[in-house]
Amino acid sequence: MIAPAAHPALAYARARRAVIVDELKRFVAIPSVAGDPAHAADVRRCAEWLAEHLRCIGLDARVERTSGAPLVVGRWSGAPGRPTVLVYGHYDVQPADHPAEWTSPPFQPAVRGDELFGRGACDDKGQLWAHVKAIEALLRTTGRLPVNVLCVFEGEEEAGSAGLLDALRRSPERFAADVALVSDTPMRAPGRPGITYALRGALSLEVEVRGPRRDLHSGVYGGAIHNPLQALCEIVARLHGADGRIAIPGLYDGVHPPAPGERAYLARSGPADAELLANAGDAPAGWGEHEWSAYERCTLRPSLSVNGISGGHAGEGGMAVIPARAVAKLSLRLVPGQDPARVERLVRRHIPRLAPRTVMVEVRTRFGAHPARMDPRHPALRTAALALRDAFGVAPVFLRSGGTIPVVNALMDALGAPVVLMGLARPGDGMHAPDERMHLPTLFRGIDASIRFLCRMGETAPALRGAIR
Amino acid sequence: MIAPAAHPALAYARARRAVIVDELKRFVAIPSVAGDPAHAADVRRCAEWLAEHLRCIGLDARVERTSGAPLVVGRWSGAPGRPTVLVYGHYDVQPADHPAEWTSPPFQPAVRGDELFGRGACDDKGQLWAHVKAIEALLRTTGRLPVNVLCVFEGEEEAGSAGLLDALRRSPERFAADVALVSDTPMRAPGRPGITYALRGALSLEVEVRGPRRDLHSGVYGGAIHNPLQALCEIVARLHGADGRIAIPGLYDGVHPPAPGERAYLARSGPADAELLANAGDAPAGWGEHEWSAYERCTLRPSLSVNGISGGHAGEGGMAVIPARAVAKLSLRLVPGQDPARVERLVRRHIPRLAPRTVMVEVRTRFGAHPARMDPRHPALRTAALALRDAFGVAPVFLRSGGTIPVVNALMDALGAPVVLMGLARPGDGMHAPDERMHLPTLFRGIDASIRFLCRMGETAPALRGAIR
Repeated sequence: MIAPAAHPALAYARARRAVIVDELKRFVAIPSVAGDPAHAADVRRCAEWLAEHLRCIGLDARVERTSGAPLVVGRWSGAPGRPTVLVYGHYDVQPADHPAEWTSPPFQPAVRGDELFGRGACDDKGQLWAHVKAIEALLRTTGRLPVNVLCVFEGEEEAGSAGLLDALRRSPERFAADVALVSDTPMRAPGRPGITYALRGALSLEVEVRGPRRDLHSGVYGGAIHNPLQALCEIVARLHGADGRIAIPGLYDGVHPPAPGERAYLARSGPADAELLANAGDAPAGWGEHEWSAYERCTLRPSLSVNGISGGHAGEGGMAVIPARAVAKLSLRLVPGQDPARVERLVRRHIPRLAPRTVMVEVRTRFGAHPARMDPRHPALRTAALALRDAFGVAPVFLRSGGTIPVVNALMDALGAPVVLMGLARPGDGMHAPDERMHLPTLFRGIDASIRFLCRMGETAPALRGAIR
Repeated sequence: MIAPAAHPALAYARARRAVIVDELKRFVAIPSVAGDPAHAADVRRCAEWLAEHLRCIGLDARVERTSGAPLVVGRWSGAPGRPTVLVYGHYDVQPADHPAEWTSPPFQPAVRGDELFGRGACDDKGQLWAHVKAIEALLRTTGRLPVNVLCVFEGEEEAGSAGLLDALRRSPERFAADVALVSDTPMRAPGRPGITYALRGALSLEVEVRGPRRDLHSGVYGGAIHNPLQALCEIVARLHGADGRIAIPGLYDGVHPPAPGERAYLARSGPADAELLANAGDAPAGWGEHEWSAYERCTLRPSLSVNGISGGHAGEGGMAVIPARAVAKLSLRLVPGQDPARVERLVRRHIPRLAPRTVMVEVRTRFGAHPARMDPRHPALRTAALALRDAFGVAPVFLRSGGTIPVVNALMDALGAPVVLMGLARPGDGMHAPDERMHLPTLFRGIDASIRFLCRMGETAPALRGAIR
């Protein structure tokens, strides 16, 4: 089954591949790093660039202010009575701190083979591009869209989505839609599409340990006082038990067990431990709660990661210093049944108890995000599955993801509608890592899938309201 | 008692104070950071500048190549039959990684009140300046020196002194002298001079923990594998016992007990815990082996400090990453009875045992240095005590220092002579810390003391050979 509108649009997109890649390179070249004051101007520039592009393809688009980073909103409302599809994406990107670890500079996008390399290439500029180009193809070839479309592209997903979350809370009616379409997740495997039906939530924190007022000479004072960096290591080391569980009392309270049959489905359809470890940069061994598979540990179960430590001298050469302060960036991932605010209270209560009296400790919250879970049997998810099957020639797998898209839960609440997470990144595409890349054949199939999804949605007259958690 | 030569020299130095400070500012402005490839050219430039200055004041000076950083050597040999004083100092400086923590930029020296601020102001450019200016004052006013002088100023003290140590091992005869004079240590207190008779040795290491081949998204993979940064924290946390002792088997074997009466002398003359903690940037509490005072813990006892940790994202904003690798810089301080090579073997054996099989660990040695101890009753130390008493108007205290001057032990071996450690930094002058400074009235008294020491040494005909450990 294929809608008549799809044919010319699919052909248009196929003919324009070189242009589509060139455009994406320009998009990736803008270093719109989330949450870094040094890149705030780049974030604004990126929003303006994207809004202008949406206007060029025929949407009514503008950059809206929020309490955080600017929001790019693009509308096409020419199909009254038809469903409205909210297309969500984010134009902000992770930092690229270690340019030496990149084969080519992170903000000088480069095509090698059939991959486009650059920070944000797949997370999320390349993935959102699939939908922008699908909309363009339909508008250019048929002069209209099979559904109403509301594009919502935010600029701080990687820093907690505060601005968009605020806007969704304050005026959910502005975002009214029958389904949200989001591509910001991995596929099952190269060539094997996936629809993610569960995301972990997040709680991002900083733990600061302070000792002396200033850095000290570690020769002159070493042994006399508690080194704040050592004390921080001691605290971090005590956040996990020997069993790999997070050692914060109460943290696992309320965690939902898997649905009936879910573990069997995940074991059958998801990666085995060996495959997951291979995808995880050939990690030398699995680690964590041994009663759960690696796939389950990083999707069904909460986790706590230390993402960075600062304090003291980390550069070349020696620096015989006892640092006055040391900071650890921690992020927890939360699963259904865990409320970020409650977990935050548990962490804020527990960490000071771990801190000895020889130092001062402060816990700062950066952001929290709720976990999300959709019913894989929901009609919108099934429609997406058919579109992916037709585009990729193979049926998609329903996946749980360990990642977080802070806004997904909020979209479900605000819209009262399901969110379709149509992943277009391969597991090895380096989201958040050096040499991040977009696999271009996957991008092109993603455009096909998006065209097919929009056409199929245009034909499903009955509203699809009512996401099942 | 004051030698006739001293009077005009003391007056000359007094009249030239403004010039002396201006010269020191030019010296401090050169960012001769030790061991950092990015500053190698600055180190060479600083050596050339210093050699030229020594030539200007009348020494036969040149820059000598070593296996490491260049050595500045200046000679005056016009007093046959008189003792030779080797003046040691170092023109390299610690890094200044956090310029925001400085009141004025670290390499733009600035005088505020009676202090000169800048990286290296007291460690060691300002302190060695006292002796250079004493030599100048004597040469300019009397046309000669009361002793033969050999200035040896190295460029990598803060990175282990490899080049000078090599040169001392290969051709000790080139450094023949009856006593070495070194100012690279703190005084007892402001206005209260000190002679350091014991230094700790050092062992500087890096511990690297590696896991996956590349950084991973901590959402997608958090919980599945052992985070190298977490594993590193777990290793660091296990390097000390709850009793504050270093938990490396065998580490305390052979540690010399204090000499008879030494603990009583240290308790009487040295800082009490409260004073030491106040000097230590108002550290909130003491920490470590409770059976030793804070002063003893950081002088008589070994210590292990973590000086910095890298891995993951330490900058602004979030970075939800599991780093592929994490590195800790560690430095041990060693006391008499501990051999750096033996301790290195203990550490290299122990740390891999702490590492779980879920990660790979590598220990790299940066450098080692022997501890040193002199007999406070040695005639050279007593002569220095008299010079300091006359210059400061108060008798100096004999101190143990927790710091390391790698070359002191090697000088004692090569020369078979004592090393006089005449400290001219106040405890709060920020050696290795932001807002490092030289107290100018102390610098001027240091010049006085150096003039008096050289004159007194010229009068002590009998050689002073034979350092007592």
